[in-house]
Amino acid sequence: MNVFQKILILLLSVLLTATFAKEHPTIAINKSEARAIREALGKYPLLDKSYAAYETFVNAALQRVIEVPPPGEAGGYAHEKHKQNYREMHQAGILFAINGEEIYAAFIKAMLDEYAKMYPTLGPHPRSFKQKPGRLFHQTLNEAVWLVHVSIAYDCIYNWLNAEDRQRYEESIFRPMIHLFSVEHAEMFNLIHNHGTWSTAAVGMMAYVLDEPELVERALYGTNLDGKGGFLKQMEQLFSPDGFYMEGPYYIRYALRPFFLFADAIERNEPERKIYQYRDEILRKAYYSVAQTIFPDGIFPPINDASKTMDIADIGPMIANNLTYQRYGKNENLLAIARLQDRVMLNQAGLTIANDFGDGSTVAELNWGSVEFSDGYDGERGGLGILRTGSGKSQTMLLMKYGVHGKGHGHFDKLQFIFYDQYHEVIPDYGFARWINMEPKHGGRYTRENNSFAKQTVAHNVVVVDETSQNNANRKKGDAHWAERHFFDGNGSDIQVMSARANQQYEGVAMQRTMFLIRDEKLEHPAVIDLYRLQSDSEHQYDYPIYYNGQFVVSNVAFDVAGNSLRPMGEKAGYEHLWKTAAGKSDSTIIFTWVDGGRYYSLISAGTAGTEMLLGRIGANDPDFNLRSGPMMMLRLRAADHLFASVIEPHGFFSEAREMSRDARSVITSVEVIGHDDEGSVVDIRGKRGLHWRIMVNNGAPTSGEKTVSFEGKTYRWQGNYAIEKLN
Amino acid sequence: MNVFQKILILLLSVLLTATFAKEHPTIAINKSEARAIREALGKYPLLDKSYAAYETFVNAALQRVIEVPPPGEAGGYAHEKHKQNYREMHQAGILFAINGEEIYAAFIKAMLDEYAKMYPTLGPHPRSFKQKPGRLFHQTLNEAVWLVHVSIAYDCIYNWLNAEDRQRYEESIFRPMIHLFSVEHAEMFNLIHNHGTWSTAAVGMMAYVLDEPELVERALYGTNLDGKGGFLKQMEQLFSPDGFYMEGPYYIRYALRPFFLFADAIERNEPERKIYQYRDEILRKAYYSVAQTIFPDGIFPPINDASKTMDIADIGPMIANNLTYQRYGKNENLLAIARLQDRVMLNQAGLTIANDFGDGSTVAELNWGSVEFSDGYDGERGGLGILRTGSGKSQTMLLMKYGVHGKGHGHFDKLQFIFYDQYHEVIPDYGFARWINMEPKHGGRYTRENNSFAKQTVAHNVVVVDETSQNNANRKKGDAHWAERHFFDGNGSDIQVMSARANQQYEGVAMQRTMFLIRDEKLEHPAVIDLYRLQSDSEHQYDYPIYYNGQFVVSNVAFDVAGNSLRPMGEKAGYEHLWKTAAGKSDSTIIFTWVDGGRYYSLISAGTAGTEMLLGRIGANDPDFNLRSGPMMMLRLRAADHLFASVIEPHGFFSEAREMSRDARSVITSVEVIGHDDEGSVVDIRGKRGLHWRIMVNNGAPTSGEKTVSFEGKTYRWQGNYAIEKLN
Repeated sequence: MNVFQKILILLLSVLLTATFAKEHPTIAINKSEARAIREALGKYPLLDKSYAAYETFVNAALQRVIEVPPPGEAGGYAHEKHKQNYREMHQAGILFAINGEEIYAAFIKAMLDEYAKMYPTLGPHPRSFKQKPGRLFHQTLNEAVWLVHVSIAYDCIYNWLNAEDRQRYEESIFRPMIHLFSVEHAEMFNLIHNHGTWSTAAVGMMAYVLDEPELVERALYGTNLDGKGGFLKQMEQLFSPDGFYMEGPYYIRYALRPFFLFADAIERNEPERKIYQYRDEILRKAYYSVAQTIFPDGIFPPINDASKTMDIADIGPMIANNLTYQRYGKNENLLAIARLQDRVMLNQAGLTIANDFGDGSTVAELNWGSVEFSDGYDGERGGLGILRTGSGKSQTMLLMKYGVHGKGHGHFDKLQFIFYDQYHEVIPDYGFARWINMEPKHGGRYTRENNSFAKQTVAHNVVVVDETSQNNANRKKGDAHWAERHFFDGNGSDIQVMSARANQQYEGVAMQRTMFLIRDEKLEHPAVIDLYRLQSDSEHQYDYPIYYNGQFVVSNVAFDVAGNSLRPMGEKAGYEHLWKTAAGKSDSTIIFTWVDGGRYYSLISAGTAGTEMLLGRIGANDPDFNLRSGPMMMLRLRAADHLFASVIEPHGFFSEAREMSRDARSVITSVEVIGHDDEGSVVDIRGKRGLHWRIMVNNGAPTSGEKTVSFEGKTYRWQGNYAIEKLN
Repeated sequence: MNVFQKILILLLSVLLTATFAKEHPTIAINKSEARAIREALGKYPLLDKSYAAYETFVNAALQRVIEVPPPGEAGGYAHEKHKQNYREMHQAGILFAINGEEIYAAFIKAMLDEYAKMYPTLGPHPRSFKQKPGRLFHQTLNEAVWLVHVSIAYDCIYNWLNAEDRQRYEESIFRPMIHLFSVEHAEMFNLIHNHGTWSTAAVGMMAYVLDEPELVERALYGTNLDGKGGFLKQMEQLFSPDGFYMEGPYYIRYALRPFFLFADAIERNEPERKIYQYRDEILRKAYYSVAQTIFPDGIFPPINDASKTMDIADIGPMIANNLTYQRYGKNENLLAIARLQDRVMLNQAGLTIANDFGDGSTVAELNWGSVEFSDGYDGERGGLGILRTGSGKSQTMLLMKYGVHGKGHGHFDKLQFIFYDQYHEVIPDYGFARWINMEPKHGGRYTRENNSFAKQTVAHNVVVVDETSQNNANRKKGDAHWAERHFFDGNGSDIQVMSARANQQYEGVAMQRTMFLIRDEKLEHPAVIDLYRLQSDSEHQYDYPIYYNGQFVVSNVAFDVAGNSLRPMGEKAGYEHLWKTAAGKSDSTIIFTWVDGGRYYSLISAGTAGTEMLLGRIGANDPDFNLRSGPMMMLRLRAADHLFASVIEPHGFFSEAREMSRDARSVITSVEVIGHDDEGSVVDIRGKRGLHWRIMVNNGAPTSGEKTVSFEGKTYRWQGNYAIEKLN
């Protein structure tokens, strides 16, 4: 398109806008889509189920007296009622658009009548808590969510309403809200943060309904129209070039909704803005980066502050999945995700995916394979690595986090890993310390243990230096010091590997973690090899903690068990929350076996003189019982340079119900560090069935060339960043 | 039938036996059943699935080299291999009977050839551990199980084998085994115990195959043929007249297999023995008593030493369900159980139930309603009460145990209760302290904590007097002192109740527990009322412990939390295994709320001056980490007479995944004891929504007449054993 064509199109669009009243609905569904859905009903199970769910939900609402209560506290009755009201209006609007039954329009009108009476009487919400107050809700965020949904409802009944009613709603509700978001709380509106995204989407979507191009501009470019804030800037700054969102998938899933709903409203009304192409298709990448990080059961890995149960079936990812599939092209894994979501949007996007999904019988199991994402808006600030093998329920997944801190929700856990097997976290991350929305638990907000435990390094599967958290658990320092990618090979073969460094988390201590996910015919299931290298000029205490679920079975360490008296492991940095349940020593290979979910797991770890092993349980110094109890173990020793070399091996089978147990002992029985230096590490792993592997890893700059290291007069050679020699 | 007819039939049967070789197969399936199954394949999903499972299992075995290893330790490779071998022979035999494919017969023959070579070379198993040793297995029990199954396999190929092979197997394997069970270990053979049942069934079933009536007599009447031991005596002594088995459903489910398999072999070969009618249809009652105690998900309540996961889908209950349905008549709940079992026997019994089950679409949800069983062989030794409301997944169930001790597997927990809601135990029983068959955990046997914790009174939801277990945890005393039924009203209405006494468990202390399961429009879910009355001439320490799952949320008790140091609650009687995590005091109603499985639960309990509340966690003094960690609470006070009056109220909803919480506070807010004496107890319960109930309970002899009690000058009247007056 040349300049002349562009100008012509611009002129035409201005002319059209001026001449014709806008057609409604216009931001989420239009008349031809509505017709298409009417005609498709009865053909596609996902569409039918979704339509039926809308009907059930809204028809139940029609039976009740409309209630628009005075504002109340977060999570309380009034709060939940206003949330329910916007959901009911939104779904009633879509139903009216599709089936034209006036009872749905009348329902929305009756509810808006109540809001139009109350809203002008409200001042700032009295119960806000460090948040920007809304009027209906204690924080603007909820109010913006309300408006996003009501803008769709209003759009759907716009033509059905008379001009007088429209004017009344706009003056009493919508314009004051737009003013609240984009004038009174302009600072938040311009914020590069997911809360800002809701505000801009709410204003921008309603702007299309109201046909107010200036408001669209404000939503896109910020209140000063200078592009330093607003929706486009958020698209630029909140994601790495790969689409990875620095706060992690749990937080982005909530922002996916305004990102995609507003983007789709733009695409529908101003396709010439090419919003879906913006920043090299950043919305596609953003959604794919969310979809590709999920565990095989659809749950988001708990990275940083995060729920342990939020999943891809949530509404934001469902919308993103539908629109990504429609707008960016078909993908088998998105169809597999549609199965987990079990519902679709009621518009062309939902129709498209429901059509392709059919009854699901030909849709393959979810299997993204291994993937790495860069982190930071410039993609130069570490990343996130995921190794996968197998598919669906029998997928094994190993995730390592080596990106940016993640601001206020960040945890001090660079090089953290999660091991997932048998459809659950086997080596878990604690997630957030929060009982979300549970009123008696600190109002459902983050509990104090989120700072004192969940964010601390020792709450993770990461080495702690001198009983102090990374960057002294200082958020500003954390934000300034990300980890670094080293190498990643997620080729899907029997040997996959990822390696990363964290050199700025502890002063004077360099850390490198190299993790393998390995399949071998001598092992029943894929196993993990973890080489965690520490290097310093001076001696430190290195603690290597591993959290697990289930029941400790057996160890070759003779533990001194704290049977009659328990004390915390320490006094600060999260140690004060760990009961020390046992301690032992070993100077050779340590084997520690537990049982979880019908399978045995063993940690087999090289021991050197002076290695201590502690066992612990979460829950000390927790006066309100906010923490979940759970077991952990920890290797400890004092050293300057050290390599923690371990295998995590799943093995055997246990069923209490069937009274069966086999292979309760690991195949791997020995891990021996041959040597490690700045060039490389060499580790020997031995076990039953003649198993003997030699692991060689490049500790220097990434290379595809030959590597040579010598330890105790013996030379070891390999090609590239890593090698596993099977010596038997 | 008159005497003349009886004699005629007897003469005829003697004549037939003498004249014709017995037709085979004869003990588990016959030729006409085999034909019927062949013809039915493809018609009934349960039958098809079961037949396919046999084929898959045996066909896999056909691919492997036959292996008959020298005997090895319990749970080890050889042990498991011999178990697998009998399963393979058994299923191959049934398949051969049905489809006549000789490869299955040849497979059994090849395996028996190996056993015939090895068995004569074996002496008593060297690894027996306090058990009567077998030859193949460390205990005779396993060997009897082997023979029960191989007798069926042998029966199926009997006619296919030549006489020489038959003679060889009988001389090398079967007759020595019969000798082992019924001569060498005659004591166990005559034992009134489920181990004895396996021995008698093995001998009796093989006796029919070998056509040896004297051996049948031995199996039925004991080695001395005097009826003091043997199968019939076991049928008389092991069950209460209601069919309840004193060791509890977990143990009887294992004995159901020999009871029903041998009974069916008798019925097939000597219907004139009327074995299914024996002792007023005791086998029907025995199975119904098992089936009717299950939780709605099919799991057996953990009564006494018991697994927490064993369920009605196990093979013994499956066989019993099929044969009970066929031999005693159809029942809708047995069909609902067939859905949980998801397989059937391959004979007429299985065909019958598979036919009636069809595709399951017309089979209703499992719902036994409330039921009480008497305990003791004479039915005069207490009982077991189960109150139920709702059906299927939304069934609430309250179980109270007030029967006999249960011998070596008994727990010192008369008046124990379990509360089941949302498809899991909410107020649980710990079950056994055992990691069954888990070799590194004490060889898979009971751990020492089974005696020191799991059997002790404080491990249960039962009042402990003076930190001592019932009957001083002495098994002989326990066996001599059962609890007593008081009254039971499981009418299925909104108010159901059961009451029992335990007066011989603590010297000088009488105990009565009355439990209601109550539905009320002011409560979202059914609630429990628990009135636990203690009466003594002298003052004692009374501890009222309640175990729960999930997370403590909030309490109105100001706890002193042991945040920095944990100590056990006591030094003996199981207290030494409980960490004391917090303590507080209250002199008025105590409210304690936790969250479990998406629902809140509150214990609301009357407090009197001096009431202490302790919080605890299982796991102290457990040097091998054999115990599962879990929370509990305990009310404590010193008194002579006392009534612990409590409500357990499920309420509200919590979903982390959906980030929703509502009604985290209980509706009931106050429990007040008006008074209690030997005539009755009166308790007032109050709460939100104007809830005000007056609970009145008869503490004297059961009555349907008018009861009157007076406390502090006020008189209370009601009719019968209990009344709940709703005062608002």
